Amino acid sequence: MSRTPLVTFTSDFGLREYYVSAVKGALLQACPEARIVDITHQVASHDLLEGAFTIASAFSEFPKRTIHLVVVDPGVGSSRRALIVSTDHCYFVGPDNGVLSLIYQREEVQRVIAIDAAHHFRQPVSPTFHARDIFAPVVGKMAKGLAVDSFGSEIEDYVRLSVPKPKQVEGGQLEGIVLHIDKFGNVITNVTPTDLEAAGWRKPTGFSIGEHKIGEHVAFYSEASGNQPVSLLGSSGYYEIAVSRKPAARELGVRRGQKLRVVGSA
Amino acid sequence: MSRTPLVTFTSDFGLREYYVSAVKGALLQACPEARIVDITHQVASHDLLEGAFTIASAFSEFPKRTIHLVVVDPGVGSSRRALIVSTDHCYFVGPDNGVLSLIYQREEVQRVIAIDAAHHFRQPVSPTFHARDIFAPVVGKMAKGLAVDSFGSEIEDYVRLSVPKPKQVEGGQLEGIVLHIDKFGNVITNVTPTDLEAAGWRKPTGFSIGEHKIGEHVAFYSEASGNQPVSLLGSSGYYEIAVSRKPAARELGVRRGQKLRVVGSA
Amino acid sequence: MSRTPLVTFTSDFGLREYYVSAVKGALLQACPEARIVDITHQVASHDLLEGAFTIASAFSEFPKRTIHLVVVDPGVGSSRRALIVSTDHCYFVGPDNGVLSLIYQREEVQRVIAIDAAHHFRQPVSPTFHARDIFAPVVGKMAKGLAVDSFGSEIEDYVRLSVPKPKQVEGGQLEGIVLHIDKFGNVITNVTPTDLEAAGWRKPTGFSIGEHKIGEHVAFYSEASGNQPVSLLGSSGYYEIAVSRKPAARELGVRRGQKLRVVGSA
Repeated sequence: MSRTPLVTFTSDFGLREYYVSAVKGALLQACPEARIVDITHQVASHDLLEGAFTIASAFSEFPKRTIHLVVVDPGVGSSRRALIVSTDHCYFVGPDNGVLSLIYQREEVQRVIAIDAAHHFRQPVSPTFHARDIFAPVVGKMAKGLAVDSFGSEIEDYVRLSVPKPKQVEGGQLEGIVLHIDKFGNVITNVTPTDLEAAGWRKPTGFSIGEHKIGEHVAFYSEASGNQPVSLLGSSGYYEIAVSRKPAARELGVRRGQKLRVVGSA
Repeated sequence: MSRTPLVTFTSDFGLREYYVSAVKGALLQACPEARIVDITHQVASHDLLEGAFTIASAFSEFPKRTIHLVVVDPGVGSSRRALIVSTDHCYFVGPDNGVLSLIYQREEVQRVIAIDAAHHFRQPVSPTFHARDIFAPVVGKMAKGLAVDSFGSEIEDYVRLSVPKPKQVEGGQLEGIVLHIDKFGNVITNVTPTDLEAAGWRKPTGFSIGEHKIGEHVAFYSEASGNQPVSLLGSSGYYEIAVSRKPAARELGVRRGQKLRVVGSA
Repeated sequence: MSRTPLVTFTSDFGLREYYVSAVKGALLQACPEARIVDITHQVASHDLLEGAFTIASAFSEFPKRTIHLVVVDPGVGSSRRALIVSTDHCYFVGPDNGVLSLIYQREEVQRVIAIDAAHHFRQPVSPTFHARDIFAPVVGKMAKGLAVDSFGSEIEDYVRLSVPKPKQVEGGQLEGIVLHIDKFGNVITNVTPTDLEAAGWRKPTGFSIGEHKIGEHVAFYSEASGNQPVSLLGSSGYYEIAVSRKPAARELGVRRGQKLRVVGSA
């Protein structure tokens, strides 16, 4: 590999602890020339689904052959396996607990390796910090050019989480949920244009959540007039509910996981 | 360009979202060798003035020819323009909404380009994420060495925000405001030594804010005795009100934007 | 030095301010090829002990000859000295206020230099921002290969903080304290296996803190059954009290600095 190896790192470790840096140090020990880009370390503690949506939203922006390390790992130390996932585009490394489920859904998976080559690990392996002692040296050696099958054997029974999908309900509506409230207070739903198409619609005509009906669909945030909540198609491919320059979630009293409904038109 | 191209990135995107990393990924797609340094991503949402003061305080520490990407962009997707600003020292890239106003005031601006060369953008352009789809590839290609006039045409009517300046009030005092409360609780005012000179003073003799009179002026924080609030000249060139090892803003009940007064002596 | 010089940076500056980036800019001015890895910038303001434990937990993961910049500096601007500490393994740069105390305890210190070579500083030196004006250019020039004795003279009377150590109390117990509550709510104590050995024990059999008795000792978090608090040996070498997938500190009403007791068995 002549190019600089690129690694991204997603976790629920937070930024106050030394944990993220210890992983980076261990990785740089194995591959001093690796470049590491943080996705986020503020995934809610142990929240596999939030980790899954985060990496799924970000990875495709990165160059081919980037190695994406994803550690949300409540089962660290137990017998849950550690994985390397190869796709046509890049690599993912993380625990076998479903945090990569959206990658399996969206990408062509070439191979999944269960990591077991202990001679590649930092010794002794702490049963509470596999990110530092197993994942970091493995990613570092992958960045050095070591082939993925150096680290273990192929498996097919890796863990897939069931990801909440919108469903048809009475009255011809689709029922979805709030996936995420972002830093701006935008309410990100799990409804995509593909879901609307499957229901025979080309665009949404109305969302309802709690007491609120949202009837205006716009292309960008500041198109909304005054304090009116609007819907729009967000940059990661999900419909959002927003209020221009205000946190919609707080304005509408909406929480993550809350149900919502949508109707559309052809 | 033989040297490694350096890019800084300032935004109000927060660190919990994948947004910052998507911008970095898109930038690295265009220029894999670029090095990206975060200024902060915790500018208050949509706060142009906070973004303006942040980049104005930081940029001059960076080497010549650094490209500074600044995205506080409540009007994303609307007809607000996207700019490249060249100065004698470096480049700034961001929306034309005034977030670069302090740069225009303090630096010799050579040229301002309104970006419109859509063939340089990531396609399709999301109307809610120009940082990823327009700014990142443009910055990446600038880092690759593409000339700024490749991206659009020169303009002169770029947006300038009016930045709050201290003013003379009755009793020979200067009235300023609290620009910022920093992480230590230091109260950073918008008053500078230049403002004092304009009023005929060489140094401040007293600040007053709310019920509080601050009569002691010191050179550094721990020079303050006990819990006494003091004034000092901060490292970014503004006078501050501080309490040694304590958050002055909380101790004094002071808020961002609050008015204050200062008198000085020759 | 042919390899890329590696620098880590630990501070209490927070991530909202421009302070961290100003230090990085000044460092990159002096050494454009330096690579900077953040340990954390969220040490509690002015908390020397938290800074000391943070850098002591992280530094050994990094390659040999890494330069570790550690700035928790309530006395900035006063006559407190600025230090370069060389060990067999690497370098530490920071104020002489005890923030490096755990390094002195655990590492073989070769030399401690009091920095006074003002011609290496950024001019003028702000009395409130030595990280930018003194530490950053010094670290940058060290990264460039300048010898540590270029920056000042050797001293031996550097400041050592007394770090709280577990002690024997009545009933044959060890009394320790809570060092840290981490992002997951794990309660990290100041008790190590070495402390237990000194008391004649091989492993802990019970912790007590507040009203709570913790009798189950496990190897990893998810080994704990239900909501039962357990003890385990954490990855930085201290015993922790944890609840599987829950914040133990909140569940048990435990605070940083709180006393606790432990007994063990041979």
